[in-house]
Amino acid sequence: MDGRDKPGHDNAGITIMAPNPSELFAPRGTPDEIETGTLLQPRFDADGLIPAIVTDAASGEVLMFAWMNAEALSLTLQTQLGHFWSRSRGKLWKKGEESGNLLRVIEVRTDCDQDVLWLKAAVEGDGRACHTGARSCFYRTLPLGQPASPNLQTKRD
Amino acid sequence: MDGRDKPGHDNAGITIMAPNPSELFAPRGTPDEIETGTLLQPRFDADGLIPAIVTDAASGEVLMFAWMNAEALSLTLQTQLGHFWSRSRGKLWKKGEESGNLLRVIEVRTDCDQDVLWLKAAVEGDGRACHTGARSCFYRTLPLGQPASPNLQTKRD
Repeated sequence: MDGRDKPGHDNAGITIMAPNPSELFAPRGTPDEIETGTLLQPRFDADGLIPAIVTDAASGEVLMFAWMNAEALSLTLQTQLGHFWSRSRGKLWKKGEESGNLLRVIEVRTDCDQDVLWLKAAVEGDGRACHTGARSCFYRTLPLGQPASPNLQTKRD
Repeated sequence: MDGRDKPGHDNAGITIMAPNPSELFAPRGTPDEIETGTLLQPRFDADGLIPAIVTDAASGEVLMFAWMNAEALSLTLQTQLGHFWSRSRGKLWKKGEESGNLLRVIEVRTDCDQDVLWLKAAVEGDGRACHTGARSCFYRTLPLGQPASPNLQTKRD
């Protein structure tokens, strides 16, 4: 399936493109509905994107952070493999499609405002989530106890 | 100190405002410097903001997600209390200043592209990170195994 097709709308062999990807999900309701309701009403920003935090389902470590459009979220929910929108390449991105390090999604959560997603996942292949070869993208810590300066040195794991 | 003053630039009692908050930190280098170097070169977006993921330092649970401008990051590093930029209120926000649920920051990390931050923190006060009274903002799970629809129901913890 072409990544830009709307899943589930293939009728008699004709794939219908979604006129507006955000219509894949319910429209935004009132603040109370969004916060306390159970209907999924995700907020996609002006670029049609929602941030997604990915943690290791076993260790809880934050592995990566990326963006999803409505289609990437739909594919992730359906296939339980992490799909994202690559802002740099301007296209849908199935994480690990080339490296084999697919993200097997165990759980997806959303926050009070329904404008952020949290995915708990297991990294397949060699278990490295970062394109640099690191297990997690967050391999550097910042110094604490001092304010900003142009000379702050991080520390690598 | 006024939240909008540039920390560390108070000279003879005269506080000099930062002409550009991003100058608080080193400018962005080459992709290789950003990925493999140790110099902190955070990327603030067109609105001057960088996303920050906050996890519970003890449990690893994702507690909240917010945005920081350069000043909020500087204050967070210096005081080890979580500071953010409220996009809805358009102002600096010391998390828990009113509720008492301050974020005691144990560790701050950045990712390969240095355009996301990960804070490990302990929530003070009654331990609730979410303004709704929940411990974590991520109190709802999404259904898996089916594509998008306007009827997807989340499940509350």
